[in-house]
Amino acid sequence: MKTYIKHNPWQIIEDKFRPEHNEFSESIFAIGNGRMGQRANFEEEFSGKTLQGSYLAGIYYPDKTRVGWWKNGYPEYFAKVINSIDWIGLDILVNGQVLDLHQVVIKSFERRLDMQRGILYRSFIVEMADGTQINVEASRMYHLFASETASLQYRIQALSGDITLEVTSRLNAEVINRDSNYDEKFWENIDQGKEEDGIFVVARTKKTGFEVYAKLETSVKTATSRLEVQDTITSAGCMAEVYTTNLAKSEICSIEKRVAIVTSQNHAVAQLKEITNNLFRTLNQLDFEQLKEKQASAWHAIWAESDIEISGDVAAQQAIRYNIFQLNQTYTGEDERLNIGPKGFTGEKYGGVTYWDTEAYCIPFYLATQSPKIARNLLIYRYQQLDKAIENASKLGFDKGAALYPMVTINGEECHNEWEITFEEIHRNGAIAFAIYNYVRYTGDEDYIWSHGLEVLVAISRFWAQRVNWSAEREQYVMLGVTGPNEYENNVNNNWYTNRIASWCLEYTLECLEKLAAQHSDELSLLKAKVAVGAEEQQKWQHVIAHMYYPFDAKRNVYLQQDGFLDKELIPVAQLDPSQRPINQHWSWDRILRSCYIKQADVLQGFYFFEDKFDVDTLGRHYEFYEPFTVHESSLSPCVHAILAAKLNKVEKAYEFYLRTSRLDLDDYNNDTEDGLHITSMAGTWMTIVEGFAGMRIKDGKLYLNPMLPKKWEGYKFRILFRGATLLIDVHADGYTIENISDRAVHIQTASEAFSLTGQGKKQVAQVR
Amino acid sequence: MKTYIKHNPWQIIEDKFRPEHNEFSESIFAIGNGRMGQRANFEEEFSGKTLQGSYLAGIYYPDKTRVGWWKNGYPEYFAKVINSIDWIGLDILVNGQVLDLHQVVIKSFERRLDMQRGILYRSFIVEMADGTQINVEASRMYHLFASETASLQYRIQALSGDITLEVTSRLNAEVINRDSNYDEKFWENIDQGKEEDGIFVVARTKKTGFEVYAKLETSVKTATSRLEVQDTITSAGCMAEVYTTNLAKSEICSIEKRVAIVTSQNHAVAQLKEITNNLFRTLNQLDFEQLKEKQASAWHAIWAESDIEISGDVAAQQAIRYNIFQLNQTYTGEDERLNIGPKGFTGEKYGGVTYWDTEAYCIPFYLATQSPKIARNLLIYRYQQLDKAIENASKLGFDKGAALYPMVTINGEECHNEWEITFEEIHRNGAIAFAIYNYVRYTGDEDYIWSHGLEVLVAISRFWAQRVNWSAEREQYVMLGVTGPNEYENNVNNNWYTNRIASWCLEYTLECLEKLAAQHSDELSLLKAKVAVGAEEQQKWQHVIAHMYYPFDAKRNVYLQQDGFLDKELIPVAQLDPSQRPINQHWSWDRILRSCYIKQADVLQGFYFFEDKFDVDTLGRHYEFYEPFTVHESSLSPCVHAILAAKLNKVEKAYEFYLRTSRLDLDDYNNDTEDGLHITSMAGTWMTIVEGFAGMRIKDGKLYLNPMLPKKWEGYKFRILFRGATLLIDVHADGYTIENISDRAVHIQTASEAFSLTGQGKKQVAQVR
Repeated sequence: MKTYIKHNPWQIIEDKFRPEHNEFSESIFAIGNGRMGQRANFEEEFSGKTLQGSYLAGIYYPDKTRVGWWKNGYPEYFAKVINSIDWIGLDILVNGQVLDLHQVVIKSFERRLDMQRGILYRSFIVEMADGTQINVEASRMYHLFASETASLQYRIQALSGDITLEVTSRLNAEVINRDSNYDEKFWENIDQGKEEDGIFVVARTKKTGFEVYAKLETSVKTATSRLEVQDTITSAGCMAEVYTTNLAKSEICSIEKRVAIVTSQNHAVAQLKEITNNLFRTLNQLDFEQLKEKQASAWHAIWAESDIEISGDVAAQQAIRYNIFQLNQTYTGEDERLNIGPKGFTGEKYGGVTYWDTEAYCIPFYLATQSPKIARNLLIYRYQQLDKAIENASKLGFDKGAALYPMVTINGEECHNEWEITFEEIHRNGAIAFAIYNYVRYTGDEDYIWSHGLEVLVAISRFWAQRVNWSAEREQYVMLGVTGPNEYENNVNNNWYTNRIASWCLEYTLECLEKLAAQHSDELSLLKAKVAVGAEEQQKWQHVIAHMYYPFDAKRNVYLQQDGFLDKELIPVAQLDPSQRPINQHWSWDRILRSCYIKQADVLQGFYFFEDKFDVDTLGRHYEFYEPFTVHESSLSPCVHAILAAKLNKVEKAYEFYLRTSRLDLDDYNNDTEDGLHITSMAGTWMTIVEGFAGMRIKDGKLYLNPMLPKKWEGYKFRILFRGATLLIDVHADGYTIENISDRAVHIQTASEAFSLTGQGKKQVAQVR
Repeated sequence: MKTYIKHNPWQIIEDKFRPEHNEFSESIFAIGNGRMGQRANFEEEFSGKTLQGSYLAGIYYPDKTRVGWWKNGYPEYFAKVINSIDWIGLDILVNGQVLDLHQVVIKSFERRLDMQRGILYRSFIVEMADGTQINVEASRMYHLFASETASLQYRIQALSGDITLEVTSRLNAEVINRDSNYDEKFWENIDQGKEEDGIFVVARTKKTGFEVYAKLETSVKTATSRLEVQDTITSAGCMAEVYTTNLAKSEICSIEKRVAIVTSQNHAVAQLKEITNNLFRTLNQLDFEQLKEKQASAWHAIWAESDIEISGDVAAQQAIRYNIFQLNQTYTGEDERLNIGPKGFTGEKYGGVTYWDTEAYCIPFYLATQSPKIARNLLIYRYQQLDKAIENASKLGFDKGAALYPMVTINGEECHNEWEITFEEIHRNGAIAFAIYNYVRYTGDEDYIWSHGLEVLVAISRFWAQRVNWSAEREQYVMLGVTGPNEYENNVNNNWYTNRIASWCLEYTLECLEKLAAQHSDELSLLKAKVAVGAEEQQKWQHVIAHMYYPFDAKRNVYLQQDGFLDKELIPVAQLDPSQRPINQHWSWDRILRSCYIKQADVLQGFYFFEDKFDVDTLGRHYEFYEPFTVHESSLSPCVHAILAAKLNKVEKAYEFYLRTSRLDLDDYNNDTEDGLHITSMAGTWMTIVEGFAGMRIKDGKLYLNPMLPKKWEGYKFRILFRGATLLIDVHADGYTIENISDRAVHIQTASEAFSLTGQGKKQVAQVR
């Protein structure tokens, strides 16, 4: 853990330079705008520990798979969103000495992320080898209002006397990935040069052929003049402009860099240059202060919809805003070809590609804080990859249109290559089906089922019906060789969660098919032909539903995580030697597998998804049985436990989980934030408040609320977009209010009553749980 | 399968060049002498498909491990015996045209391995682009009588008219491995040059620092003269000598190459040169014909001890000799630092390192065909690696001197890096203990237990006692997360074989400890202190033995391979679509894992090791249950099944398995012989005849025999070394004879009687099974 980030409601602040933790801070202060993003690398030269990273959404490279021993069915490539053009670089020479924070005396240092306005600040005073002191103030933003552009300002002040200054402003396409399986270079340089008003580079990814055109305009000013370019330096893939000046004591040199980065993913290659110039034409109508205002106002619009205010607990307030901020930096939902990488634009790990996290954790956040189109685009992403999922299943021996969505993907093809995950962590298929159900439940947009959803559901159901097998011994269907959400168990038989979600998929698909059969619109006849599931096949599905085996312990009256779970030594986590934790950093893999310890909600994930199928006592029994064995070593674990703890009225436990999930990165709970932020679990943080503390659910098309208040909090307030209405929910110790700040009436249910809240109406409820 | 190898009792013959199968033939015709060996690469240039390979026993490189995702406990390196100095190379220019079998018209071609004499022959007639025809006759041997030397003769005859000939004789240390995880070069060049009588190269392995000194002497003669070196060519790591001559039609140019290769593994670096020159001094006292005679006589001595003669079945005769031949080429037992790589000196796969194959399959062969010292050296190999095995276990979280021997090793450190094998295929520990028991049972050399064996047994038992855990649910000990010999099941619970051999290890160790306690020699006091196992620990072991859980099906009255085996769809292999076989080449890994199909004997391996614990009916029941689900896709499978089938009097089934195991490589049953031969399973072939058909066992210190005769055979004859006596067993349809051709009396038991056979005595038994 690290606790040096200052608590502040709207700011993330680091008030001292800690070179040993620089990679952690580079992750924490990362910025982006959904189209591109960047770790908080320094503009100037830095010879200390750093992970350089700038990423472009959807620009990936299929890195050749690295395996120990090949297994049939492994993918050939692991597609990864790759480190791309670096536009921020500034080489600063002060009296001929390189400015490098690893080589100078640092008098003061602050890094500050203004989440309200979406601007990253950094300031420092340093003393150079010759005794010269300078003050630097830098600000940087990835424009939310023009997502193919970004800008920064870098102001240097001579503090101790006159100085000579040489500034080299770089635009560099000669970048590499730290994570390259065979030390391959992923980019080739296509073109580069100088234009009247700046420099440009053009690079193309190997194999995938994405072409990227980047243009940089630099302006360097002193109080009195704008400097001319002294020299232009050309090296392989890199252009740079050199400026020199003298600064009198106290004088400031202000450097501005503006970049436009456009790609063949979104435009015709022939037009990249022209588009770039157009972008600059618009951008250059504003000075840097005006750009900052524009950025602030774009962020203002986001906060107006998705902010959560917490009173009485600054750490909690900062944390939820940080989570919401990062989610909005990562995915804006404008482009259905994009998705949410587990680390967003903040690191190379997991390759910026899509996992089941999106469906299980992110969809609810976007559903409630953004237009339904955004969540819908996330569903469409999978719809468009259905053919690939069918192909993937067929590679593994499934037929008749069965689909297995990849564990990890960017273009629909499987990237992951551990057999126990790739081939066996198949519950992901269930989460993808559940997201369709969840979307329809929340939005009421049943048309989506007919336009897209049902095709996906049928293909997934076909997979499950083939993946189970009849056990003559049990006279039930079993599912052998799976890995559940708890990845500390591999290749188990009858993971309860997987069996349960498989059966649910079949049920829900049959239900949709029945509804479809009852529809008589002509428009649906094409779909009816497309998803024709014969009577025999439907009977098979019903037979599977009716005869699915669920491991169960009659003595404890609980479902078992998998066959044989009770053969383990059941020693609660609390009795573990703390020096052995996290176990994934201290124990060999076999020891972890043999142990009873649970990485993240597994049986309990099922109780989260399917809570309506179990009463609170049953939930309580399972929570009491499983949580004590859970080590929460996945970032996705605490949020689900927080929601269930809240449901069980364990408010303090829920609050503990809330802190853990919300400050996971800020406080580096898992000691791995240096690799990048845990973006997808941040949506889980949001769920912790809204579904956990506020008890929000959708029941029969109505918004259900049943808030509670953590002891430490005076209150909390959040907005929900629900079926065209915008609701402001304001929870205090003595009750809560629901305010409909839209013109659209909405059906609401609380613990005690159901009612319709008219447009602009307000409802007071006199007590919380 | 490939069936082009001609059937012949003493020769392996390929009568036509099949470039598409060249890598297969390179494996089949590989030669070696226990110290070094080589694939049957061509001397002359060859631009077609080829896997170049020359290997030196024990000269390895720790190649950086390649994994998809790192797991705690994985080894950093995979040590592999590497491709080394190539001494055979000859560039032949005929009228200025390169001789390259991929570029000329081949008029005739024969490759022939004389197993009786240990000499590889090749002859061919080709037509060059200009119409010139030449005849080439080559012979090559790795000297059994001087294991650091080898020689070849290459005779070129001008068939169609006069020719000019240029011959370049190379000695090349600039070699690479095809199997290099990161395309690293493993060798560095240290020195090279010309001496009066030849050329030399010195190379050193990176990291491990093995230095290798190789000297080559070439002589080129025509009928009339010995040619002088025209030119010496030096390039990085490679020396070559050039000779030129004219040949009249029918004239022969005879090239001889002799090499000595010595290494710092066996000699001081400073002496390598001198030792090489001494080797040449001895070698050069003989001409090539004399060398061939010497080689033949060394092989004669081996055959005199270990030949098996089969009458009436040439395919079977050739096959058993091929297996015995390859085993003797791979391991001579002189050096206890060496062991038997699964592919010997015939390929890169599996890296030439040691698996449990040695203990489970090879020890019986060496016990019965060589001096006990040889098998003992194989045991000592593991004894010397005990500290590393304890360290290995401690890395995985075991303590108090528990040892886990590596799955794959060359120097005692684990090389393998698949978690399901490395951490879980722990039954290997059992095989290593069983080999000690087996050695003592065969030789009666109980002293080995006190000098070495018991320390190993205690450390292994300590591992088992910690690896099981008490299941409160079952009130028995269970063993979770293992992989049995059947590697088509991973991470299963309670693999019966593993539980059984673990319990046996504890039993046998306790038995030995009890015997030790009863010994009062002073010499043993040190050992008593070393292996002190306290009363409490012994009680724990006894408790484990008494309460070990064995999965069992009461209905079928069979032990189950593992928990949950009966949940599988139990469809016999016979009902599988033949186009789907071998399943490991057609099915995805998850499908294989979920299926009931068994790669190699698993429960039945236990019935093989512990046959005395079960009656024949019980064996029969288990054989009938498991064999129908067995795909025999490991080379180690058919032999064990053959032995059990023979025991069950299923003679035709045993014969079928015999052919499969014995001709596995010759007929390329598994379609993978191009990677190298399956050396360790060849010992299994020998077991098939001696333990299977002849029913040989050791019971209470007596040699037990109970032969049967496959229908197709007229008879078979083999020798056994047993407790100082040499026995010749000659089996025919109407009975068999046992002849003691030594002077030492030996106790023998047959199906009907027990007797002592005096030195030079002979016993006739009037019937076979």
